Amino acid sequence: MDCAVIPLKRHKEYLLIQTVDFFYPMVNDPELLGRIALANVLSDVYAVGVTQFDTVEMIVSTSTSFSEKERDVVIGLVMKGFQNSLKANGYRNTPLIIRQLKINPWCIIGGIATSVCRSEEIILPSNAQPGDVLVLTKPLGGQMAMDAHLWQLNQTEKYKKLLSECSDDDIRKTFEIAVKSMTYLNKNAALLMHKYQAHCATDITGFGLLGHANNLVQFQKEKVLFQINKLPIIKNVLKFSTLVGQSTKFRSGRSVETSGGLLICLPADAADKFCRDFEEATNGEQKSFQIGHVTAANESDAVLCEDVEFIEVSL
Amino acid sequence: MDCAVIPLKRHKEYLLIQTVDFFYPMVNDPELLGRIALANVLSDVYAVGVTQFDTVEMIVSTSTSFSEKERDVVIGLVMKGFQNSLKANGYRNTPLIIRQLKINPWCIIGGIATSVCRSEEIILPSNAQPGDVLVLTKPLGGQMAMDAHLWQLNQTEKYKKLLSECSDDDIRKTFEIAVKSMTYLNKNAALLMHKYQAHCATDITGFGLLGHANNLVQFQKEKVLFQINKLPIIKNVLKFSTLVGQSTKFRSGRSVETSGGLLICLPADAADKFCRDFEEATNGEQKSFQIGHVTAANESDAVLCEDVEFIEVSL
Repeated sequence: MDCAVIPLKRHKEYLLIQTVDFFYPMVNDPELLGRIALANVLSDVYAVGVTQFDTVEMIVSTSTSFSEKERDVVIGLVMKGFQNSLKANGYRNTPLIIRQLKINPWCIIGGIATSVCRSEEIILPSNAQPGDVLVLTKPLGGQMAMDAHLWQLNQTEKYKKLLSECSDDDIRKTFEIAVKSMTYLNKNAALLMHKYQAHCATDITGFGLLGHANNLVQFQKEKVLFQINKLPIIKNVLKFSTLVGQSTKFRSGRSVETSGGLLICLPADAADKFCRDFEEATNGEQKSFQIGHVTAANESDAVLCEDVEFIEVSL
Repeated sequence: MDCAVIPLKRHKEYLLIQTVDFFYPMVNDPELLGRIALANVLSDVYAVGVTQFDTVEMIVSTSTSFSEKERDVVIGLVMKGFQNSLKANGYRNTPLIIRQLKINPWCIIGGIATSVCRSEEIILPSNAQPGDVLVLTKPLGGQMAMDAHLWQLNQTEKYKKLLSECSDDDIRKTFEIAVKSMTYLNKNAALLMHKYQAHCATDITGFGLLGHANNLVQFQKEKVLFQINKLPIIKNVLKFSTLVGQSTKFRSGRSVETSGGLLICLPADAADKFCRDFEEATNGEQKSFQIGHVTAANESDAVLCEDVEFIEVSL
């Protein structure tokens, strides 16, 4: 798992939870980039049900291609986005340390989140049960929505392909849905995991839904099969991906995601309530989706059902 | 300070100590690079007297210019050096997590070291007293010794300048001293800080001795002056720096260091014993140096004495 859960040998009642995450800019608005970076960094910790941090560090490097002024403005805005989002999400008193890496050819954004916890705060990623319902707390496709927006801004060949069936307004609206989703912290999802006694979870990023599901299934104590029968995708994204010839990854549940949702194994009788509660907690701004089931198996695996249903999500 | 010391709000008897460090390769032997990286990463934590780690993470990115085979061999050796040095230094049971960053134009090596401590394990960097002796636990010039060795390997113009007054053997021997010094962990120095009740310390890296001394002096509760009257430098390095026209930084105590020693404020009556003990603990393989004094002052500052003495160190 991306998140380290380390029992402290010298202080046996505590565990150290730590995650490190880095990526390169995927959007041209630096303040927005900072907010997405924060959501992405904290997400691994939320996946084990932990919602309190003892320290958050932001790591950022300027690019060798930036002028000094570009550096000051751009990196300043990235920091501001990261910092403001931390404060706005109930972490006003969490120590934030900002570290600037020496210069690098490419701009790097990342962070470290650390928490010292008691074991009852943690939901280990190993207790999926046959009968569980799989819930996903964000739609897929955020990364592709960002890409389409960049193609539009740069008037690329791919943008021209999109225009054959989509309008500029479609691209913009899709981008807006992605922004709302990718800047949203998985904190509420983690809090509700405790309320509804979730059995385990993982967060969805670079390996895509199926990749992370496969990873999670390998950590289970019981041999189980994750059967995924629905793929909620941000509105228009599946069409975009088809138009530019990149739909295979989406259709196979392997689209690369940044700051995706949590994939949670919930007791069957809790899934409906979780999803309702999640939507209410966000005043209808965010949705979660029941996307599959856990069954007993001889061999642990995560698969997409043949008749998988694609759901367009507008939020 | 580079090292974060964070009182845990939820578990008041503990503090979280965390350091993050990154750099680019400065030597062409990847296994050696891994060992230096470890010493460099842990050093910030040793500077506050902490010698036990709850987790160490190594972060490494391959370079876009590497072939797959180069990546596997080179990055594998960097990891091996880092890992072996950790084990060889008494951290066989410390959880080590290795994270590979997505590809980057330049190879990046770094790490994170984390420790959850009780306050008595920590020597805060704020209690220097007038009358203290300043002790430095490694000679300066490691980075320049590495540079000279690279110039030699690549037969550069600067190498030709060195040859006007130095032999190939001089460059090699200087390099060997630097290797021994830069791969050496500041762990013993940290342990002896407790034994001899050191008042504070910092580790010497990118800002040079005077830069870090200046930084440390700003953290002091009392207004004090750090007066540095000796600069121990690895044998030949001052000559090298003069031959290539880079001696100003050395003469002003501002040479860029990687994996340098600790600069420690010790009670005057403990400094001799500390230095003797340090040399004995390393079987004479490493030396520490009394390089100056702390006096009361109206304005906190760290300065080099006018008649500063340069000491050539062979180890």
